[in-house]
Amino acid sequence: MLFILCIFMTLPVILLAGVPIENASAFSQPAMGIFLVGLAGILISRNQPRYLKPRYMFVLTVNVWVVVSLLAAIPFYQSSLQLSWTDAIFESISGITTTGSTVLSGLDNMAPEILIWRSILQWLGGIGIIGMFVAVLPFLGIGGMRLFATESSEWTDKELPRMKSLGRGLLLIYSFFTFSCAMVYWFSGMSLFDAVNHALTTLSTGGYSTSDMSMGKFESDLLLFESTFFMMLGGLPFFLFVRELHGQHGVLLRDQQVKAFLSFLLLVTTLLTLHRCYVQPDIEPFSAFAAVLFNVTSVVTTTGYASEDYSLWGPLAYTAFLFLTFVGGCSGSTSGGMKIFRFQLSFMALREQLTRLIHPRAVLTRNYNGRPVSDAIITSLIAYGFVFVFCLLVMTLALASLGLDFMTSLTGSLTALTNVGPGLGDVIGPAGNFQTLPDAAKWILTAGMLMGRLELLSVIVLFSPVFWRN
Amino acid sequence: MLFILCIFMTLPVILLAGVPIENASAFSQPAMGIFLVGLAGILISRNQPRYLKPRYMFVLTVNVWVVVSLLAAIPFYQSSLQLSWTDAIFESISGITTTGSTVLSGLDNMAPEILIWRSILQWLGGIGIIGMFVAVLPFLGIGGMRLFATESSEWTDKELPRMKSLGRGLLLIYSFFTFSCAMVYWFSGMSLFDAVNHALTTLSTGGYSTSDMSMGKFESDLLLFESTFFMMLGGLPFFLFVRELHGQHGVLLRDQQVKAFLSFLLLVTTLLTLHRCYVQPDIEPFSAFAAVLFNVTSVVTTTGYASEDYSLWGPLAYTAFLFLTFVGGCSGSTSGGMKIFRFQLSFMALREQLTRLIHPRAVLTRNYNGRPVSDAIITSLIAYGFVFVFCLLVMTLALASLGLDFMTSLTGSLTALTNVGPGLGDVIGPAGNFQTLPDAAKWILTAGMLMGRLELLSVIVLFSPVFWRN
Repeated sequence: MLFILCIFMTLPVILLAGVPIENASAFSQPAMGIFLVGLAGILISRNQPRYLKPRYMFVLTVNVWVVVSLLAAIPFYQSSLQLSWTDAIFESISGITTTGSTVLSGLDNMAPEILIWRSILQWLGGIGIIGMFVAVLPFLGIGGMRLFATESSEWTDKELPRMKSLGRGLLLIYSFFTFSCAMVYWFSGMSLFDAVNHALTTLSTGGYSTSDMSMGKFESDLLLFESTFFMMLGGLPFFLFVRELHGQHGVLLRDQQVKAFLSFLLLVTTLLTLHRCYVQPDIEPFSAFAAVLFNVTSVVTTTGYASEDYSLWGPLAYTAFLFLTFVGGCSGSTSGGMKIFRFQLSFMALREQLTRLIHPRAVLTRNYNGRPVSDAIITSLIAYGFVFVFCLLVMTLALASLGLDFMTSLTGSLTALTNVGPGLGDVIGPAGNFQTLPDAAKWILTAGMLMGRLELLSVIVLFSPVFWRN
Repeated sequence: MLFILCIFMTLPVILLAGVPIENASAFSQPAMGIFLVGLAGILISRNQPRYLKPRYMFVLTVNVWVVVSLLAAIPFYQSSLQLSWTDAIFESISGITTTGSTVLSGLDNMAPEILIWRSILQWLGGIGIIGMFVAVLPFLGIGGMRLFATESSEWTDKELPRMKSLGRGLLLIYSFFTFSCAMVYWFSGMSLFDAVNHALTTLSTGGYSTSDMSMGKFESDLLLFESTFFMMLGGLPFFLFVRELHGQHGVLLRDQQVKAFLSFLLLVTTLLTLHRCYVQPDIEPFSAFAAVLFNVTSVVTTTGYASEDYSLWGPLAYTAFLFLTFVGGCSGSTSGGMKIFRFQLSFMALREQLTRLIHPRAVLTRNYNGRPVSDAIITSLIAYGFVFVFCLLVMTLALASLGLDFMTSLTGSLTALTNVGPGLGDVIGPAGNFQTLPDAAKWILTAGMLMGRLELLSVIVLFSPVFWRN
């Protein structure tokens, strides 16, 4: 991980070769340091066994994300922006977790190496979470994710070749989509620099932009549609793309999660467009549709771009966007949030319960994508929901105790836990940013972003008594 | 049910004998009508079988609550208040569901027969829900409530004697507590009329008052403590009082739900008192404690009294009261909300999940009050949580689409679903009332109150396809 980080940390300098770079040493120095530490780590551990118990997997997973985030903050701290450590780490963690909340303003005139570093962090975070989804989470059985484990539920050497091939496929597709997105953006009127940056943060559903106005800067419905398309791709389960590539045609569109995800986006967009045309009768319907589709997709895929301040579309839209912040994309994608499949499983539990109320002795089976859904998965779903609500509650109370108003406290916590990016309200809404929050609030949100990205339970378990027993 | 309603409808007139009563005919006329309809019903159905399938139990249960509420609205409509049907029904349903949201103002100068009718409705609603909990809900297995079913899970004639004895015990204890409460209030400075009214709405955790200032009118810390005590009684499982009465000493305080409920109240009160003394350094600590304890207990037991506008205690308290609105008291009490045991079961699921993450092959058992918690109960818990959140979402969106601001939409829906009473915000907060809301909003809230009171699923099931199949 350290080597990969090191390579990517030199990228902003290499990519911008030819342009005078203000903060070159802010990147090259830490990159060198990280390389040396990585080398030392490899030399020290080369004779250690590779097998890991679940217990250590959690420590390792959480540590990788924390350590990489902290190291990635160094260029921000050392740059000419003169950020505090708090702000540098907030920006870095918001990037790597693909949240996209920012403490920076004046992006339009910012040093390009800083902007591209922000985008690269999100792109890395995106492939990181896809990889983690395939390689780690299902085996750890976090919050119903065992549903996506393959037949084998063991992390053994035997599985490694299959894992490696899958990993290569995922990286290939992720890179290909990003490249396509950059090309499409470029051909549609963005500068090459803007196109690359936005492509990196679109596919990773991260949402960092090169402008304070986010995608609103370009004032182009075409770009909104293109961006919507690629955000949707970012919100789909990437392992299904690999299976499509391996000849299993149609597997993507037959997937229950994908169908629900796309139908949900379509339904919400239709309803909100109708509502918006109703309350703002003088708006051009097609533009209204483009903006609603874009902003809904942005929030549901947890990207966090905004084309305008949707919190001004009236109380219904305001309320709807708050609820949309919970949803999230598909499991196995780069998006965060509670994830579509959890809602589907909950609905399944509801249907089962209603049937049981009428036919108390009915024998019922549950299936999701043709696989049985065990009771353990249902229990883990409750555990996830409970922890999510509990974290949201504690974070909101903590922020409120710092004196933040209710909407900032609630939507700030929520947008951090779901890795969306913007909250609602005057301070952190789609037109605002996180700069003015007190340092303590930034740390709380930083913790929330990390926990949200790691599906909460993999962090919570580190603080549970059972983890430390024996 | 109609006969009981008929008797209670004549009570306001009888109790106030000697005082000139403005609206006597508003009560006597509908009471007479209800008596005749009830008589006709009995004559028609006297040869019908008494056995009911679950399907019909749902229809019956929901219908009883709806019909009684509608009939109970007649005196409001016919009275000199000149209420619309919307307002009359809102007030009546808010009463019978022991919610306590009101569309009336000027309570301090209102005709006493109206005030006592409101209180009687809440008292009837309170004993109604206690009876329903014992007699109906566990057999129907709503949202984890099967946990509280006795050995038999059948509604048969054999069970009837035991049921009747339990029913008598419950009524006795409920009446005794109400009487004690009225006496205590009276001796502590309330007028007899105020004491009786408030006793009726304290034990039923209803929250209707005889003053626009609610309990704030009396400006007495002593009354706040007394009221807190009796609200707590109202929030405890009444069937445990019956078992105490039958010689099973200590069963109340050994109950897991009771312990959690009381500890939770104590913890929240302590924290909020400390916080309040910190942000308002010139407040008298003991008075602050009394007010916090009273208002927290009022919201958690879903009573809905207020002694002052607690939404002015700063952002932390504001946020805390919003979250407290979800909680609810014990199952088997007169209080609404999500209920303490659901949080305990969720926490149990979380602990199980964390253990499983570390020890994937561990064999785990769940127990609640010494009884095993089946997987079906866990599934029904998810179903309940999902429906609760879904209803909250739909109602909030519906209210927002009527143009209400976000906080009014959210907390209005929430306070209706949990049968608490006041919401938050300028309009429906503890210092406001529901009068100014549009009629459509009142109907939405009315539906929410009924659904919340009937544990959601017993209403939802009537609209499910499985109910109507065959």
